[in-house]
Amino acid sequence: MKVKVGIVGATGYAGTELVRLLMSHENAEIAAISSVSFEGKAISEVYPSYRFLVDLTCENADDVVEKSEVIFAALPHGLSQELAKTCFDKNKIFIDLGADFRLENEEDYKEWYKGEFIYKELHNSAVYALPELFRENIKGKTTIANPGCYTTGVPLAMAPAIKSDLVELHGIIADCKSGVTGAGRGLTQGSHYPELNEAFYPYKVATHRHTPEIEQTLSHLAGEKVTITFVPHLLPVNRGILSTCYLKLKNGVTKEQIRTAYEDFYKNEYFVRLLPDGQNANIHDVKYSNFCDVSLHIDERTGTLIAVSAIDNMVKGAAGQAIQNMNIVLGLDEKTGLTIVPPAF
Amino acid sequence: MKVKVGIVGATGYAGTELVRLLMSHENAEIAAISSVSFEGKAISEVYPSYRFLVDLTCENADDVVEKSEVIFAALPHGLSQELAKTCFDKNKIFIDLGADFRLENEEDYKEWYKGEFIYKELHNSAVYALPELFRENIKGKTTIANPGCYTTGVPLAMAPAIKSDLVELHGIIADCKSGVTGAGRGLTQGSHYPELNEAFYPYKVATHRHTPEIEQTLSHLAGEKVTITFVPHLLPVNRGILSTCYLKLKNGVTKEQIRTAYEDFYKNEYFVRLLPDGQNANIHDVKYSNFCDVSLHIDERTGTLIAVSAIDNMVKGAAGQAIQNMNIVLGLDEKTGLTIVPPAF
Amino acid sequence: MKVKVGIVGATGYAGTELVRLLMSHENAEIAAISSVSFEGKAISEVYPSYRFLVDLTCENADDVVEKSEVIFAALPHGLSQELAKTCFDKNKIFIDLGADFRLENEEDYKEWYKGEFIYKELHNSAVYALPELFRENIKGKTTIANPGCYTTGVPLAMAPAIKSDLVELHGIIADCKSGVTGAGRGLTQGSHYPELNEAFYPYKVATHRHTPEIEQTLSHLAGEKVTITFVPHLLPVNRGILSTCYLKLKNGVTKEQIRTAYEDFYKNEYFVRLLPDGQNANIHDVKYSNFCDVSLHIDERTGTLIAVSAIDNMVKGAAGQAIQNMNIVLGLDEKTGLTIVPPAF
Amino acid sequence: MKVKVGIVGATGYAGTELVRLLMSHENAEIAAISSVSFEGKAISEVYPSYRFLVDLTCENADDVVEKSEVIFAALPHGLSQELAKTCFDKNKIFIDLGADFRLENEEDYKEWYKGEFIYKELHNSAVYALPELFRENIKGKTTIANPGCYTTGVPLAMAPAIKSDLVELHGIIADCKSGVTGAGRGLTQGSHYPELNEAFYPYKVATHRHTPEIEQTLSHLAGEKVTITFVPHLLPVNRGILSTCYLKLKNGVTKEQIRTAYEDFYKNEYFVRLLPDGQNANIHDVKYSNFCDVSLHIDERTGTLIAVSAIDNMVKGAAGQAIQNMNIVLGLDEKTGLTIVPPAF
Repeated sequence: MKVKVGIVGATGYAGTELVRLLMSHENAEIAAISSVSFEGKAISEVYPSYRFLVDLTCENADDVVEKSEVIFAALPHGLSQELAKTCFDKNKIFIDLGADFRLENEEDYKEWYKGEFIYKELHNSAVYALPELFRENIKGKTTIANPGCYTTGVPLAMAPAIKSDLVELHGIIADCKSGVTGAGRGLTQGSHYPELNEAFYPYKVATHRHTPEIEQTLSHLAGEKVTITFVPHLLPVNRGILSTCYLKLKNGVTKEQIRTAYEDFYKNEYFVRLLPDGQNANIHDVKYSNFCDVSLHIDERTGTLIAVSAIDNMVKGAAGQAIQNMNIVLGLDEKTGLTIVPPAF
Repeated sequence: MKVKVGIVGATGYAGTELVRLLMSHENAEIAAISSVSFEGKAISEVYPSYRFLVDLTCENADDVVEKSEVIFAALPHGLSQELAKTCFDKNKIFIDLGADFRLENEEDYKEWYKGEFIYKELHNSAVYALPELFRENIKGKTTIANPGCYTTGVPLAMAPAIKSDLVELHGIIADCKSGVTGAGRGLTQGSHYPELNEAFYPYKVATHRHTPEIEQTLSHLAGEKVTITFVPHLLPVNRGILSTCYLKLKNGVTKEQIRTAYEDFYKNEYFVRLLPDGQNANIHDVKYSNFCDVSLHIDERTGTLIAVSAIDNMVKGAAGQAIQNMNIVLGLDEKTGLTIVPPAF
Repeated sequence: MKVKVGIVGATGYAGTELVRLLMSHENAEIAAISSVSFEGKAISEVYPSYRFLVDLTCENADDVVEKSEVIFAALPHGLSQELAKTCFDKNKIFIDLGADFRLENEEDYKEWYKGEFIYKELHNSAVYALPELFRENIKGKTTIANPGCYTTGVPLAMAPAIKSDLVELHGIIADCKSGVTGAGRGLTQGSHYPELNEAFYPYKVATHRHTPEIEQTLSHLAGEKVTITFVPHLLPVNRGILSTCYLKLKNGVTKEQIRTAYEDFYKNEYFVRLLPDGQNANIHDVKYSNFCDVSLHIDERTGTLIAVSAIDNMVKGAAGQAIQNMNIVLGLDEKTGLTIVPPAF
Repeated sequence: MKVKVGIVGATGYAGTELVRLLMSHENAEIAAISSVSFEGKAISEVYPSYRFLVDLTCENADDVVEKSEVIFAALPHGLSQELAKTCFDKNKIFIDLGADFRLENEEDYKEWYKGEFIYKELHNSAVYALPELFRENIKGKTTIANPGCYTTGVPLAMAPAIKSDLVELHGIIADCKSGVTGAGRGLTQGSHYPELNEAFYPYKVATHRHTPEIEQTLSHLAGEKVTITFVPHLLPVNRGILSTCYLKLKNGVTKEQIRTAYEDFYKNEYFVRLLPDGQNANIHDVKYSNFCDVSLHIDERTGTLIAVSAIDNMVKGAAGQAIQNMNIVLGLDEKTGLTIVPPAF
């Protein structure tokens, strides 16, 4: 017996990746998909790699809600709240890949997104669903805020160090590099092939909207307000985010303490692969998978922990994590549909 | 009950791709792998994307034969014959991804590979296993010659036209473009990143060893000796071969006749996706999959059929087709383990 | 004393490349540039690599004509005829990088471009300016039709063979592969980074507008009407066109005859580099330069000449050749401003 | 009258780039080049883009010294000291692109390079030649230590802030990303195309040999010992280094003070392009040029200056800067041979 799932916004990159991953999920079947731009069109016309394999035509969002028990939304920010309310009223599970329910504090939402919380109780009942950090909170919830891409990779790199109180909470830096699918399917000069190819640059330096979301997570872990410096860069690759995180070690903290903290924290986490000393996290090694690789490096000369994480921004940073969250909410094995071995090249 | 399979030469690119694909094959389990270069090492040390997921250590070839019912060999040309003989004597199924058993005529093998047939009866009992063209011959065989990459893509683009007698047999041209994994894991100046990046060039022009193999297949289809001009080029991408094939239409042959011939020929072939008129085969759409996309174009001004095929050289052009062949030999559903939807990006 | 040159359409890729190359031309100075999209803006705002180095602000086309002795136009097809007329009436040299004056036969223009010749005498006085083939015709002309990119690379690969009567005139095939700058600065899904990266495919198969232009050139060389099959493909690189051309050798023609014909034909051509036997033309080796590398290969098994040319589509295929033509018209050394050594990587 | 220059190690990437740049230097001519691997071979056989344009055959190092007034050495670390001594004794100018003369403190050299200073007086007379920071020291010197690539980009990003005493000297972080030519022409698994393509990872985290060299420069600027955290990453592009540098602002320091400090510091520096507020340094914009683009960003939430520099690692980070240094030593205009406009794509 498979659960019926639907995807609103299925022709954006995250939505399309959901389609692909759900096609091989043994406990789910896609009941309907929607797309504003491509309503009435087959998704395989938009993404020809799906030809003959995915027999789904874009309907509208109402149809999707009607036909599905679990609704994934991959919409531009600001468009999820009404849909979430509808799902809530119909007792359906709503998993939002957008930002509308990620920030707990409406003031932050107003400041960074220029929007407001329409249904405040709905926001109260929603959960920020980064499973490795907040798994227990997710169970039993029906409005699920799936984290963003940077906001998955950065906290997973830092969490054990912060939770274990081994690092200072000031001066934290996250220097992140993302593949271009993170910017979506929409055409921009910056994603025009000749202008991104052989290029590399930072963008939205210290002003990216994922900043308050990362800080919210780190603050929960620390038990106090944490502020960080966050600088994203655009990589000329399709997939992957590498986050190089710099944290000042507290006095006397040793390399071994750090490693032990990470090993303990992640010992039961299938999707976090803590690399042995001497190895480096690499986006190449997690492509198309839900894994987050973490490598640890200590700069003894300056007393700095350099924790590096690599994820596939479209999988662990979006669609894969959304499925992981669905599995949790439905009481399925968390790994269901997400066990592929990342290709070697 | 899963069949025990082994891979000799598991750390080359084709061998490693076999490992990845077989990990999710529901009717097979990898009993052993071997590697001359990495004997005693875990394959996940060589390919870190496999960390924690593939728990296999390289043994030697004898161990692999001993522990397995089906043995795949991904070896440099010339090294498979002895192994094939051993497998034959032990009544094991041998699937060779190298060239040793592909050419039926020993003279061709001598000319193009500078080798000879050591066990002539073994060559007689072997089968050239391109399933869409020679499926019936494969059943019941135990020494299986898996075709090369170009030698899969080119014949699949041309077969219906030749078989239906709609094109001339002289003047056939195959202009092919391959991703760099086709050249393997070995380091060369030509695959050094700064020298291949932003580059594109032909190589082994009209002298590539896949020429006689393609001609052997086309000759079987035509019922007479076919000679072609074959020019491979190297693409700055990891995966994929696009074959642009030029065939002179016989007098009076129409576009509709061509399409009908292809539709008939491939109507039951899951792995060949014949594209609608107006669409173009693209290596992007078959990445990581066993599909062969074929698009048809008629140049009415010159009376030329331009048939274009796209495959993933490591899957349909190597490891995936080898599994497809195993499935045939074992009487399994031919698609087993090979049904992934190619990612949209 | 430097000639004053102007560029109409300076912010498209070809126009911008003209700006770059003309900046180091010792006998020319850019008097004015124009752009419809960016009028009033500095070109260095559009292309930040020019910051502080190119102090030019986009004006309108009239200003450019007024201030310049030589006017280059890099406009979408169809927009050059009026501008050409204005320049003609003002006795200025007009070099058109668009297609409006390339086809000699108005019927071809109507068929392939859906336009018509507005000023027929102007068309009669214009010259198709591929210097290595038609140098003598260019001298003294003032309306110059600069060839397109494919239409430079393909004829240069074939010219000596055709001119020397060593090959058949039927069955000629040009299989071409172009970097993406050939498609210009305009945003399209096909040039969106995630969709072109790791992709490769043919487009406008046997229907590309450069077909009649190539045929016009080859027909002039042959002295009779030549029809070819032309298939362009899109490469995931910024610059470069590789043209793999297939021509049937006439009976008894030898490899040595072919080489001699090419050596004789190009012996005084600085910009054509005929490679020694055994080497392959590669777009990597001509990047950023006005060179056309040509390699020759004989398939003796099928009696086919495979002539391969590599050019930088933005230089020899557009802006560089336009400057070469200006040099010819002005009586300057043809190499002026075009002698850079292509970078090794 | 042109100065005769020679290049020892001309077939490595830095040496070859020197050849290319010197070919268009109006006051220099290449008298001889050498290469251990390719002695007796033409450089155009090694780098076919140079065919017919660079008529130089590799000799041995002695020949180069004999025939040249200025000797550039692009050798593996450790091999320059004897050559430098020879040049010194013969009153020739020696410009070393390797590391042998970069560190002033022999203890640092022993620790990081496991070597020792053979001719201590020679080390004393040598100068560390980063022109924008130490121009006055360079004049009149004959043993010139040309900085490394990271060690050019990082100090140029930070120098004005440190020199002006506007930032703290502890907690400085340099997160750098380099194109793969920085690793040279030698084949490694890490630069094998299929393994670097679509990959991104850090390497030699907090242990790279450029660390003491950067610190030496920053300490000179600060007037006291500075220790930093330096993490390099490998980018899947050919050229370019982007350095994202994090410095803690001193209390009360404003954005305006920072900008003024940079503007003053670089106001006469042709090769440093300080970008306006709101723009981001990008390796794309400096390709093939000797420019260093610097963009400034203030994170007011954490009081952090984020200074980003972009250089071409083979030009400003190696061969171009070596020529800039030669120009200084010879009393030429510092820009000679280095004024190309970086291509727009």
